[in-house]
Amino acid sequence: MDTIIRVDTRTRQIHTLTATEDEMRWGGRSLIAHVLLKEVPPNCEATGRYNKLIFASGLLADTNVTTTGQMSVGGKSPLTGGVKESNVGGWVGRKIAKLGIRALIIEDTPDTARTDVLVVRASGYELVSMPELKGLLVSDTITSLRQHYGKSVGILCIGPSGEMMMYGSGIATPDNNDVQIRYAARGGLGALMGSKGIKAIVVDDAGSGYAMQAYDKALLTETSKWMAEALLADPKTENRNLYGTPAILALANSSGLLPTRNFSSGSFEKADDIAGERVREEILSRGGEGRSSQACVAGCVIKCSNIFPDKSGKKLVASIQYENISLLGSNCGIGSLDDIAEMNHLCNEVGVDAIETGAAIGVGMEAGIIQFGDAEGAKNLIRQIGQGTYLGRILGNGAQITGRLLGIRRVPVIKGQAIPGYDPRGVKGNGVTYVTSPMGADHTAGNAFETLKTLDPLKADGQVDSSRKLQIRAALLDTLGVCLFVRPPFLKRPEMFGKLLEGRYGWKMGIPEIIALAWDTIATEREFNRQAGVSEEFFPMPEFMRDEPLPPFNAVFDVPMKDMRAMWDGFDPASLTTL
Amino acid sequence: MDTIIRVDTRTRQIHTLTATEDEMRWGGRSLIAHVLLKEVPPNCEATGRYNKLIFASGLLADTNVTTTGQMSVGGKSPLTGGVKESNVGGWVGRKIAKLGIRALIIEDTPDTARTDVLVVRASGYELVSMPELKGLLVSDTITSLRQHYGKSVGILCIGPSGEMMMYGSGIATPDNNDVQIRYAARGGLGALMGSKGIKAIVVDDAGSGYAMQAYDKALLTETSKWMAEALLADPKTENRNLYGTPAILALANSSGLLPTRNFSSGSFEKADDIAGERVREEILSRGGEGRSSQACVAGCVIKCSNIFPDKSGKKLVASIQYENISLLGSNCGIGSLDDIAEMNHLCNEVGVDAIETGAAIGVGMEAGIIQFGDAEGAKNLIRQIGQGTYLGRILGNGAQITGRLLGIRRVPVIKGQAIPGYDPRGVKGNGVTYVTSPMGADHTAGNAFETLKTLDPLKADGQVDSSRKLQIRAALLDTLGVCLFVRPPFLKRPEMFGKLLEGRYGWKMGIPEIIALAWDTIATEREFNRQAGVSEEFFPMPEFMRDEPLPPFNAVFDVPMKDMRAMWDGFDPASLTTL
Repeated sequence: MDTIIRVDTRTRQIHTLTATEDEMRWGGRSLIAHVLLKEVPPNCEATGRYNKLIFASGLLADTNVTTTGQMSVGGKSPLTGGVKESNVGGWVGRKIAKLGIRALIIEDTPDTARTDVLVVRASGYELVSMPELKGLLVSDTITSLRQHYGKSVGILCIGPSGEMMMYGSGIATPDNNDVQIRYAARGGLGALMGSKGIKAIVVDDAGSGYAMQAYDKALLTETSKWMAEALLADPKTENRNLYGTPAILALANSSGLLPTRNFSSGSFEKADDIAGERVREEILSRGGEGRSSQACVAGCVIKCSNIFPDKSGKKLVASIQYENISLLGSNCGIGSLDDIAEMNHLCNEVGVDAIETGAAIGVGMEAGIIQFGDAEGAKNLIRQIGQGTYLGRILGNGAQITGRLLGIRRVPVIKGQAIPGYDPRGVKGNGVTYVTSPMGADHTAGNAFETLKTLDPLKADGQVDSSRKLQIRAALLDTLGVCLFVRPPFLKRPEMFGKLLEGRYGWKMGIPEIIALAWDTIATEREFNRQAGVSEEFFPMPEFMRDEPLPPFNAVFDVPMKDMRAMWDGFDPASLTTL
Repeated sequence: MDTIIRVDTRTRQIHTLTATEDEMRWGGRSLIAHVLLKEVPPNCEATGRYNKLIFASGLLADTNVTTTGQMSVGGKSPLTGGVKESNVGGWVGRKIAKLGIRALIIEDTPDTARTDVLVVRASGYELVSMPELKGLLVSDTITSLRQHYGKSVGILCIGPSGEMMMYGSGIATPDNNDVQIRYAARGGLGALMGSKGIKAIVVDDAGSGYAMQAYDKALLTETSKWMAEALLADPKTENRNLYGTPAILALANSSGLLPTRNFSSGSFEKADDIAGERVREEILSRGGEGRSSQACVAGCVIKCSNIFPDKSGKKLVASIQYENISLLGSNCGIGSLDDIAEMNHLCNEVGVDAIETGAAIGVGMEAGIIQFGDAEGAKNLIRQIGQGTYLGRILGNGAQITGRLLGIRRVPVIKGQAIPGYDPRGVKGNGVTYVTSPMGADHTAGNAFETLKTLDPLKADGQVDSSRKLQIRAALLDTLGVCLFVRPPFLKRPEMFGKLLEGRYGWKMGIPEIIALAWDTIATEREFNRQAGVSEEFFPMPEFMRDEPLPPFNAVFDVPMKDMRAMWDGFDPASLTTL
């Protein structure tokens, strides 16, 4: 995992470089932050020549540590104008790592529109023109690539929305049998890929001579085993395994933070119909292709994914997840899992982030283009995104644009990006994360949902300190390339992160060094954003969050801006002693 | 001119206040800057509750000094997110001044959509609900208001685009016989007015007991007389009087800075057909309602406006101006004055800025929604803006959004606002103004066109110093409330500005004090923008301006960002000794 592949989409030249000493110390989100700050002009246009699209393996990506198939995708975000890292499961991340590739960096733009496929093999790399893929839905793209490149290759691709450079577009990747479609969904990275004229990346790791060289194999194996066992012993893991991420929906609803009808309420009268328990019940009773307890990456012990079937047992979507249920479901007033699953599937097909799209449709419903609860209307809107109708282009470019063009002011976005399934009035720590994270409104950057029982979510007190700590932890996990859901065992034994890195690289890392590693990622991202002019001043909390009390608990977001602005001022990573 | 009227659109209460000592020293653009910084949270949403729409008389508005009918309109700009002042002629400004009103400040938003008319009379003020005006074109709105309020009232109103809060919307005002329609066009102030639920403002100065109290009437009269005579003696005035602002089109074309086909060229093969000479020729030969040498405000001696007739002599639009000809004409590849005049008229009817709209249509043409040169198609697009179709909403929200939604990267905007009729590659001083002015891409903030012969417009050298000086002068004129075209005599005798102020107010102002007054306006605006997070970093020169050589002289914009960023660092107004 010591090569960096650089693809120049203008000259069509591809260069293989050995990672520098610096680059060897960066992984995943950290590598993206450093490459952006070093190589990309912060003021550049996100879909222009000077931005770079970066696929980066995490520091542990070539090990067998559980969940390490997660891969980071990043660049200057079309949506936020700042740094963006979005990580994704699927089978392709591990294949890239197995080819010894630390990062794949896509540079420049072609001088005329193109539909290229980047083929990455052990024997070499090439850009192949495949105009026949132009405009294809994601499933058709995958089918076509399978015909050309076989069943065992890893795939990353964009849908028609990414080709049209819609800012709500993500980058899709299937699992090994094309059942699950996973997304590096957020920040508009699909538009960035589209701007490069790259419709897909095919990764074939057959014949790779690469073998991971652990510094201390025994330590790595031992720590990895501890981690898997500790995860399996954790009750949260069991809950996630049985119910998937929708496990939290009932609690989100009773806590009054579930986005409902364009963030006008925090609880939904049909929550029971779309909760995790119901997801599992339908999967079990419908049978057929339906499955719970699926892994999104090879070797994951948590297995929180699922295959959601229709009444006849045929797959509707895989996997159905909390964020998508909340944004496409309750946020649109839609209380049927079948409808939500089909909407989610359509998002996956046209190539858009289901969070951004659910938020945009919610705004559209508030504007009256269709009514809240109109599932068929909503499906039609998502299809229009893929068709590139004018309304489709509006919605496909996200919630902020939709609000602006339809004259709506209750628009749930921060840094240009839609707020995910946690209303910041119902869990104020997430509001702090949305405003202060370099990523904008992104729950994975520091999710305070886990603090619901330890810190009053409706009170402003303590939320800034809590978010800071959560953000540090998220940055660490994203840099290692492990799933956010490995948190529980490490909360008790954070030093074990150090053991993993020592086993793999020989680095001696105590808790201070681990925290410094995470902070370095955030500090680098913040410096990029500072130079890009992406500020809390320009992108504050939307006014309605401070003005409109959120039923049923009628809280408003009241964390003072000055406290959030000062969050990282003079931050000393040594001041944190735990994760 | 010592009252401030505050209208709360939520409570519908209207308060009349005596201007404070501070407010008495501010006028026009200066007053707007200070009220914004003092009263409006810089991070507020532009169409939200906390923004304010301000109509401000210039410092000399209640005098008979020529051109002082100009009135400033401002607020936090929907388009740029920063400070905006847009000034406008017409008859209403003087009526407001004659009522002794220094500023009319519209606050808050109604809690449900409304169509109100603010009626301003000597006897009092009221907000009148007139739902029958909802959705009306500008001419129909004026007609309807005339039926209610008579022929002699002054009117300000928005078209349907402003009601739909499209960010390309301006605020219209007619002359005394509703022939000329003038616009406070830029920055999206029409959307701001729409957000307040105010369709129109009616100003009746009948029965006003207000009488201007000059500190030194003789000095004011004498200086005013000098100014009128000096203006009349200046050859530029004669040129403007004969040909109007289109007088400069031929020079713009031969200098290679005329926006042509979405800023892909700086000269247009049909320039002769749309130049000032041709405008005059058609007006003279067609006769009928056609007129040149019209005043846009009562008492102006320059009279650069016109009434452009169709072949039968019936008015097509009044006034047709350089900016609109260049953006709606050459920039759209359209070379017929009749087409351009009709497009301009349609913009005036639906309520949008012709510069922003011409730029947006140019971008749309590049995206292929219609072809360059398709005048009928372009008229249809403007009509769609008024109808609020999805495509109309895209275009009506300006060039930046249009580029984003149609996937086009050659988008001529700075700070979210369309570049006017001077390509920054062809006159680099204007590029500096667009990037560094608190107003974004706005030629009236410091137009280097006048330096074409004294400073090589294709070279970067000296442009920053030149723009700084031009911006100071523009800020002064906008604060006094006089037209930019009064510059020539004051260039030779800048101390005469001081005489005007001394005559009116008794202030002793030498050149240093005059420059300090102008600088205070810009510094206040910059501070507002700083707190709003509106930066040169977030809104740099578009990349194509730096990358694509502009035919025919093939210059690229190459003024270094660091020089522009440092433009005002440590600026000492005392360092400028002339205007």
